Amino acid sequence: MADFSLADLETIIHQRAHSGDAESWTAKLFAKGIDKAAQKLGEEAVETVIAAIRGDRQALVSESADLLYHWLVVLGIAGVPLDDVLKELEGRTSRSGIAEKAARSTD
Amino acid sequence: MADFSLADLETIIHQRAHSGDAESWTAKLFAKGIDKAAQKLGEEAVETVIAAIRGDRQALVSESADLLYHWLVVLGIAGVPLDDVLKELEGRTSRSGIAEKAARSTD
Amino acid sequence: MADFSLADLETIIHQRAHSGDAESWTAKLFAKGIDKAAQKLGEEAVETVIAAIRGDRQALVSESADLLYHWLVVLGIAGVPLDDVLKELEGRTSRSGIAEKAARSTD
Amino acid sequence: MADFSLADLETIIHQRAHSGDAESWTAKLFAKGIDKAAQKLGEEAVETVIAAIRGDRQALVSESADLLYHWLVVLGIAGVPLDDVLKELEGRTSRSGIAEKAARSTD
Repeated sequence: MADFSLADLETIIHQRAHSGDAESWTAKLFAKGIDKAAQKLGEEAVETVIAAIRGDRQALVSESADLLYHWLVVLGIAGVPLDDVLKELEGRTSRSGIAEKAARSTD
Repeated sequence: MADFSLADLETIIHQRAHSGDAESWTAKLFAKGIDKAAQKLGEEAVETVIAAIRGDRQALVSESADLLYHWLVVLGIAGVPLDDVLKELEGRTSRSGIAEKAARSTD
Repeated sequence: MADFSLADLETIIHQRAHSGDAESWTAKLFAKGIDKAAQKLGEEAVETVIAAIRGDRQALVSESADLLYHWLVVLGIAGVPLDDVLKELEGRTSRSGIAEKAARSTD
Repeated sequence: MADFSLADLETIIHQRAHSGDAESWTAKLFAKGIDKAAQKLGEEAVETVIAAIRGDRQALVSESADLLYHWLVVLGIAGVPLDDVLKELEGRTSRSGIAEKAARSTD
């Protein structure tokens, strides 16, 4: 098991965003604002999709890391804690399979 | 803190995928294969981007949950453990800020 | 040559959007507004990307048609004429190759 | 009306792709292949979505031009004529509204 979680990454992102380090990639992304961060999230999702379709496992790992990083930057700029998303996922998965299916029936 | 992690969600997805429950949304997604799952990942990313741009925090939480779920389904179908992605992120963040910047300079 | 252009499609979309036909797919999309239409545009782009990566020519034609249709719906809701985009493209392509390259150097 | 059509742009793209000009952006994209071109298509779609959501008309025109250009590059690399897509659109729009609705009912 990796000794590392998304919560760890969230903490690191917040530290770098507020570090005052003008050279930090993360601080620069925060300074550019939500539109640019969301754009990067969308772009990394496209690259993750392509890696998955190509069956390129190494690219899938690498692009997924980029996707999670930029997604957490978006959450950070929006002021939404990772914990809110994990609780949402916990709530959904604690429902029975039937409830899950019903909840998704309008997809 | 949520008493729930992405590793928990990965476990649940694997259980449902191999449960033999024909009504399970997750089992159906696995049966459809990587193209359909990757398509859903891309679609949820678009919805996450829109929620972020709109500044709609509740939608951002909900779409993010959809994004993470479908991303883990893609990983599951591809046979890539979540752990590989967390280790990739751990490796990147353990570099100094300067190294991080250099590693990203070709973006 | 097809006896049909994007300008023809734009005209048809505008007619349907303002037809008062509650059953029209196009009228429904206009009623839902820019967020939903933009979401559909994003989704069709993902499907076009997947068809291209797969080398599925028939899917590429079909998804491309969906992409152009939903893109023109977005333009229509935003009140931007197709002509503005064609003029932008004309302006760019009338530049020399060197100018084109310079204009894109920040990509 | 613009004295310029997508068919004109398709012609220009094909000329540049096969011009032998190593400095041409278009020739470079063709050389990189379908994955890179499809990735750019996906990225420009994300930017078009963001411009639409923001209600930024000038950005919507500019990003739309980028989207159409990269989409035609994808078609060109895949060897699919623009004409095939226009004929597909012509076929769909010549159906009655009821037929259009039925054809889309599985969306």
